[in-house]
Amino acid sequence: MNGAQSLIQTLVNGGVDTCFTNPGTSEMAFVAAVDRVPGMRTVLALFEGVATGAADGYARMTGRPACTLLHLGPGLGNGIANLHNARRAGSPLINIVGEHATWHLKHDAPLTSDIRSLANPVSGWVRTSASAATVPNDAVDALVASQTPPGQVATLIFPGDAMWTEAPDPLPAPALPARPAVDAAAVEALAATLRAARSKGEACALFVGDAGWTPRGQAVASRIGAALGKRPLGYRFSARGARGAGIAQIERLAYPIPQALAQLAGVKHLVLAGAPAPVGFFGYPNLPSEIRPPDCALHVLATPRQDVLAALEALADALDAPAEPPQRNAYARPALPEGDMSVEKIWLALAALLPEGAVIADEAVTSSRESDRWMSGTAPHDWLAVTGGSIGQGIPVATGAAVACPDRRVINMEADGSAMYTLQGLWTQAREGLNVLTVIFNNRNYAILRGEMKAIGLDIGPKANDMLRLDTPTLDFVRLAEGMGVPASRATDMAAFNAALAVGLREPGPRLIEVMI
Amino acid sequence: MNGAQSLIQTLVNGGVDTCFTNPGTSEMAFVAAVDRVPGMRTVLALFEGVATGAADGYARMTGRPACTLLHLGPGLGNGIANLHNARRAGSPLINIVGEHATWHLKHDAPLTSDIRSLANPVSGWVRTSASAATVPNDAVDALVASQTPPGQVATLIFPGDAMWTEAPDPLPAPALPARPAVDAAAVEALAATLRAARSKGEACALFVGDAGWTPRGQAVASRIGAALGKRPLGYRFSARGARGAGIAQIERLAYPIPQALAQLAGVKHLVLAGAPAPVGFFGYPNLPSEIRPPDCALHVLATPRQDVLAALEALADALDAPAEPPQRNAYARPALPEGDMSVEKIWLALAALLPEGAVIADEAVTSSRESDRWMSGTAPHDWLAVTGGSIGQGIPVATGAAVACPDRRVINMEADGSAMYTLQGLWTQAREGLNVLTVIFNNRNYAILRGEMKAIGLDIGPKANDMLRLDTPTLDFVRLAEGMGVPASRATDMAAFNAALAVGLREPGPRLIEVMI
Repeated sequence: MNGAQSLIQTLVNGGVDTCFTNPGTSEMAFVAAVDRVPGMRTVLALFEGVATGAADGYARMTGRPACTLLHLGPGLGNGIANLHNARRAGSPLINIVGEHATWHLKHDAPLTSDIRSLANPVSGWVRTSASAATVPNDAVDALVASQTPPGQVATLIFPGDAMWTEAPDPLPAPALPARPAVDAAAVEALAATLRAARSKGEACALFVGDAGWTPRGQAVASRIGAALGKRPLGYRFSARGARGAGIAQIERLAYPIPQALAQLAGVKHLVLAGAPAPVGFFGYPNLPSEIRPPDCALHVLATPRQDVLAALEALADALDAPAEPPQRNAYARPALPEGDMSVEKIWLALAALLPEGAVIADEAVTSSRESDRWMSGTAPHDWLAVTGGSIGQGIPVATGAAVACPDRRVINMEADGSAMYTLQGLWTQAREGLNVLTVIFNNRNYAILRGEMKAIGLDIGPKANDMLRLDTPTLDFVRLAEGMGVPASRATDMAAFNAALAVGLREPGPRLIEVMI
Repeated sequence: MNGAQSLIQTLVNGGVDTCFTNPGTSEMAFVAAVDRVPGMRTVLALFEGVATGAADGYARMTGRPACTLLHLGPGLGNGIANLHNARRAGSPLINIVGEHATWHLKHDAPLTSDIRSLANPVSGWVRTSASAATVPNDAVDALVASQTPPGQVATLIFPGDAMWTEAPDPLPAPALPARPAVDAAAVEALAATLRAARSKGEACALFVGDAGWTPRGQAVASRIGAALGKRPLGYRFSARGARGAGIAQIERLAYPIPQALAQLAGVKHLVLAGAPAPVGFFGYPNLPSEIRPPDCALHVLATPRQDVLAALEALADALDAPAEPPQRNAYARPALPEGDMSVEKIWLALAALLPEGAVIADEAVTSSRESDRWMSGTAPHDWLAVTGGSIGQGIPVATGAAVACPDRRVINMEADGSAMYTLQGLWTQAREGLNVLTVIFNNRNYAILRGEMKAIGLDIGPKANDMLRLDTPTLDFVRLAEGMGVPASRATDMAAFNAALAVGLREPGPRLIEVMI
């Protein structure tokens, strides 16, 4: 058994059974090994950013790592933008990055580069296999690193000779580190602080991250909110959230800083439960970085790597919170909207028809900011956000989510500008027959940038305007999708959209609807 | 004048008048500044790899840097693959990478990452502007660094507050470093060594890099070859080469190691003129890394940063080489081939119709290995190779070459697999009305990988086969091109190809021909 085979078998033993690949010559021994070792499914992508984003989507839906197979530094480079999102999502993920044979590196052949320097900013763990002898152990360490809470990107740089040389036997699945519990006394102390503050009339609020966005997390957060007298807030860019009927829906902290500051106005004590302290997405000349009143104290209930859910439940008990959240979203599907199109009507139509247990990968940017409002009464579903602000995530994440959950419908709400970074993912959807419906909001603009320029008070001169418009020429997403084997249609009114949506949510395989807004 | 304006004006003063952009929120002050400072053309790309590859193509054709505008770490990440090629090409290039405001960085907002770690592997020079006060000087240093021979990637990380704060006045164009001359005595000594070796009957050969691929370089290399009794060899992955009628064509060192070893069989002295010592593109289990006979001595005539052309001419004189090269390519256009299609016929048709002064961006991979043979008698043209082995270069480099040379026809000979990494460049070609004809060799395979697996002796099992085929589904490049506003057609016989080729070489603006081979 060579190093590639031993690596793959150790990964399979550890529960990694899916590899999103874009291989090159230096990975050929790995490619060959996949036929020699049973149990690893390979999903080909035409571009590495699709592979890494798909692995992220897969991890968010399964909680388990997939691996990627990337071609040296440039292949990793193409994957970095979505690895950045995966890092911010806390997604467990194992990159296998091919490298020249160890003895070939010193010759600085054309493809040689400093892979480690590229990997470090997006990885929680990076290692180069020194030889085939270390491979099974390297694989085990990658399994452990990737699944160290809350989940990390682990990057294993894999030289050719480590792949093709005879290697030690594969290793069994390692023990994985558990989430550390939050100290009960600390929870009690925090509860005492909050009770004292409340008794002085000081406003207290809870701010939750990923764990708080699960159905159970939103329920317990809402119970705590009832005890504190303020609806809990949730980190906007969480990896995965539950939404729809039956959810005790929490409030998302707004993206624009003035709006977010208004949400926290008057709060004197902010409790962080697996969430970072709220800060602006960008720094602006005349706005603060930190989003909270100047006299607001921060209290960390639990860090993202701790057992946040248990801590939330302990806090709810310590605060004598009501046993049930004060309210849950009622099941109230809207009627199918008719007539001219609007962003709101598109979302309402989706709310009208959404199947139970759907997954929505949201990269609609300016076209999705108010979607919580429109989607609260529809069937319960999962919602995957752009975690690291790196655009080009939607199509790949939807692809990986569909690989992970073949029995669930995946809907990718996607902006035109964002779609063009990783459009190649449509081909993988067609290749794998994935049940992904992509809805492209074609507004023919980088609308978010136009909004940001206006918000900052910058003039949009002719050259700036030229850099913000996507209508010279207009992109034709129907042809682009069909060119990659995905059936597609264009909707310019709601009747057309509703009909295409019904088909897209019913028929097997991928589809795309381009909506002109 | 704010930092962004002062930066742009200093770059314009230094001769940088083109910026390939894909901006985000953190670069809005730069976007606004382009309208306040005259002289900077902005070319929008939908993906950063298009912007960086276009800047590389621009540099290869003009010898001058363009700048790019990239959005934080993920934007740079998307540009890395083609920056890797630009670094290997020795292309002068200035990246402007937006960064959070200096005081916002410590809050680790979602888009925060270690930009410097990403930039280092592809840059010869990296700096973060500390504040607006340092910006004009930073711009001057970037101008100098990028144009330090042979040319480098210079990356300036540009925080928001350095962009929007009042800055010192822009600076004038700096003096640029010249290429160091090769010591005359060293050339004489090398000539003496070579003469002595020849008198003992030892074979000597010349191996040239970029400078040796210019018309003048090939002529003098051929004269030296005549003196040494062996046709000179050229580095395969040079940034730019001259080809066609009237050129004293040198021989390209082959990509497969056994073929390359055969070209150098028996050589006892190999003279490097601006070229690296020949090594395998990859390391293989049973092949050497270094491509030369074990008893072959290396002699460095000139490094890539020195004045290689002058050194070659001095060596020719010192060797009493003939005043003229022994032969130049005759002007002999082939007839237009008819009937069924083949790779050879596609190239011969291009040779039949190629206009004078065309530029060929070649990323046809397995479909271009023998093109020298077919293109030697056509009109003189330039040839741009994939320098760093990073795939997805062809469309962007063609785009940048066309921006640089609006009066020349640019033909991009492109493989199907490679095209899909940076297909978004077609939109920029349409937007700018660039005279680029893209020919896609659609063989529905990663054919090079199939060949490499066979060469190594690896079995291609069913899963491996699945990772090498692109026909599930087949990509439809006509629809893909039309979706981005580029007129396109498909050719399945030579009559159709010849007709489309004639139109594509004559009409203004971009076109694409998909050839099914």
